[in-house]
Amino acid sequence: MPHLDLLADPVDLCAALVDVPSVSGEEGELASALEAALRAQAPHLRVQRSGHAVLARTELGRDKRVLLAGHIDTVPIAGNVPSRRDGGLLHGCGSSDMKAGDAVFAHLAAALDDPRHDLTFVFYDCEEVEAVRNGLGRIEREHRDWLAADLAILGEPTNGAVEAGCQGTLRVDVAVRGRRAHSARSWLGDNAVHKAEAVLRRLATYAAREVEIDGCRYREGLQAVRIAGGVAGNVVPDECVVTVNFRFAPDRDAAAAEKHVREVFDGFEVTLTDLSPGALPGLGEPAAQEFLAATGAEPTAKLGWTDVARFAALGIPALNYGPGDPNLAHTRDEHVDPRLITEAVDVLRRFLA
Amino acid sequence: MPHLDLLADPVDLCAALVDVPSVSGEEGELASALEAALRAQAPHLRVQRSGHAVLARTELGRDKRVLLAGHIDTVPIAGNVPSRRDGGLLHGCGSSDMKAGDAVFAHLAAALDDPRHDLTFVFYDCEEVEAVRNGLGRIEREHRDWLAADLAILGEPTNGAVEAGCQGTLRVDVAVRGRRAHSARSWLGDNAVHKAEAVLRRLATYAAREVEIDGCRYREGLQAVRIAGGVAGNVVPDECVVTVNFRFAPDRDAAAAEKHVREVFDGFEVTLTDLSPGALPGLGEPAAQEFLAATGAEPTAKLGWTDVARFAALGIPALNYGPGDPNLAHTRDEHVDPRLITEAVDVLRRFLA
Repeated sequence: MPHLDLLADPVDLCAALVDVPSVSGEEGELASALEAALRAQAPHLRVQRSGHAVLARTELGRDKRVLLAGHIDTVPIAGNVPSRRDGGLLHGCGSSDMKAGDAVFAHLAAALDDPRHDLTFVFYDCEEVEAVRNGLGRIEREHRDWLAADLAILGEPTNGAVEAGCQGTLRVDVAVRGRRAHSARSWLGDNAVHKAEAVLRRLATYAAREVEIDGCRYREGLQAVRIAGGVAGNVVPDECVVTVNFRFAPDRDAAAAEKHVREVFDGFEVTLTDLSPGALPGLGEPAAQEFLAATGAEPTAKLGWTDVARFAALGIPALNYGPGDPNLAHTRDEHVDPRLITEAVDVLRRFLA
Repeated sequence: MPHLDLLADPVDLCAALVDVPSVSGEEGELASALEAALRAQAPHLRVQRSGHAVLARTELGRDKRVLLAGHIDTVPIAGNVPSRRDGGLLHGCGSSDMKAGDAVFAHLAAALDDPRHDLTFVFYDCEEVEAVRNGLGRIEREHRDWLAADLAILGEPTNGAVEAGCQGTLRVDVAVRGRRAHSARSWLGDNAVHKAEAVLRRLATYAAREVEIDGCRYREGLQAVRIAGGVAGNVVPDECVVTVNFRFAPDRDAAAAEKHVREVFDGFEVTLTDLSPGALPGLGEPAAQEFLAATGAEPTAKLGWTDVARFAALGIPALNYGPGDPNLAHTRDEHVDPRLITEAVDVLRRFLA
């Protein structure tokens, strides 16, 4: 089992984390290495293993508890493991998304033996795959008490910015029906693809809303992500289905978002296929204010859906803050700027020490 | 090898033809039975075998030559061979499409030993499959002289009506381009599916033309037969392709039809994928007039594409006339009314004897 030195330079620790492959579902070795390192090098923490996840927390009886969470899985390796340094950057699979964040949290787990707030660390599995496999979901079911906190910080790549809350996402299939006929006698049919014009017109002319919440500007979007129709080269199609993805600001809850989309496509057959509510930024929480003061940064809206929404659903304000670069996530050339790792450690130490 | 009695009742001959399975590509046994019967029972004909096709003709030095052609292949059998009689109808795979027509022609081949016009009979293979396998195409390449005629009659099912010429058909892919983006930041993209609205609008508002030629009314159609676009559930699609089928009256040739479609979709990327020109009815030809007089029927336009277009391309007027029911073609319950077989024999005998 690889040895991890949590108290060493967090940049070296990030490289060591990258060097232990941990594609989703195969995080066992990395989880064991982290568990062993935490037990040996952070005796002030209570440690709990959960599948391929590792949990650790202080139990100091502080008024507030801050939870720091990072997924330890990566997308499939693309010839970019082990890590390498080049031009002052640290390259490798997961370096940005999000072993840089994991390294910051693991270092602080060992370094902060007397923090201002109680701390919970969650290093979890299977964030990069279907939601049903997500390690946080399993932890919520099996170790619900471990997720209690006044503020959750996810170490997802944000280039060191604070991204608050997240937008929700839902998908619907909008079906248009017609009547099949041989295309040589097309007047006997009713072309469902032609009729889908009305659906596309509503999409093309849709005015997406922008909303400001807690100083964060959210920007919605209603987009066809798929269209399909057709039976054969000589048949008037009797069905056309447009799959639409609605990204909605967190001032709409799940029911309101669905209602809105059904109104937009009034008159068509609308089937909901996927729905993940968003998360309000929750920056009114004192612990969140303290954290913002420590970073000195203006928070911005998180537009993509992230696991902060899981914490929001539990009533816990949550935000994304990590040293990785979101634009490099999942790329072959994934890398991280070591200065952002060092900066994140400094910011969080200022907040938590 | 099954024995075929060409001079027996043509209804019994039709049943005998149905009883020899001849799914496309597997017409060898039926072709051999027909060849043997023609050689033995129609000594006035010169007989030529070509693959799974059989050709036969008189060489009487008449002024005019009439060609009677029927495909002997069928679609796959659906528990409907051998033939059976039920309620006065003859049931079985290929009974309508088009062994009824074949029976009429094979009967007349043996019965008419001193016809008014020279006669050519073509019993050919692989009409029900891809055009490239069509037996008439092979005969055109290898025995071009056998297709010479002043009028060609195809025995395709028309319920005893005369259907003249045929419409052409072409297919184009109309592509709409956009720019990919994550659907959480859709304003960075340009949704190709939304933009396809303009293509569908042109289809939905297209005014299809009707044209009368030689007393036959052709009715055009421009129909989307397929639409496809989409990359993933969270991606703004950068491409949407609409496949369009244009059925065009035979007063447009292939080039004019293509030009028209390109004009309809002006501004979009149009790729021609398939083009079969139509055939003018050619009813001005004296032999065609004689045939119409014998039937006593008003000719109507053939809207679907058929092998008459192959003859038209060779400069030979061609029409469809057969005892089968086109609405039963390719169905499990395929059957034919024996009275229409008898009527077709009478009509053609009146015309040719």
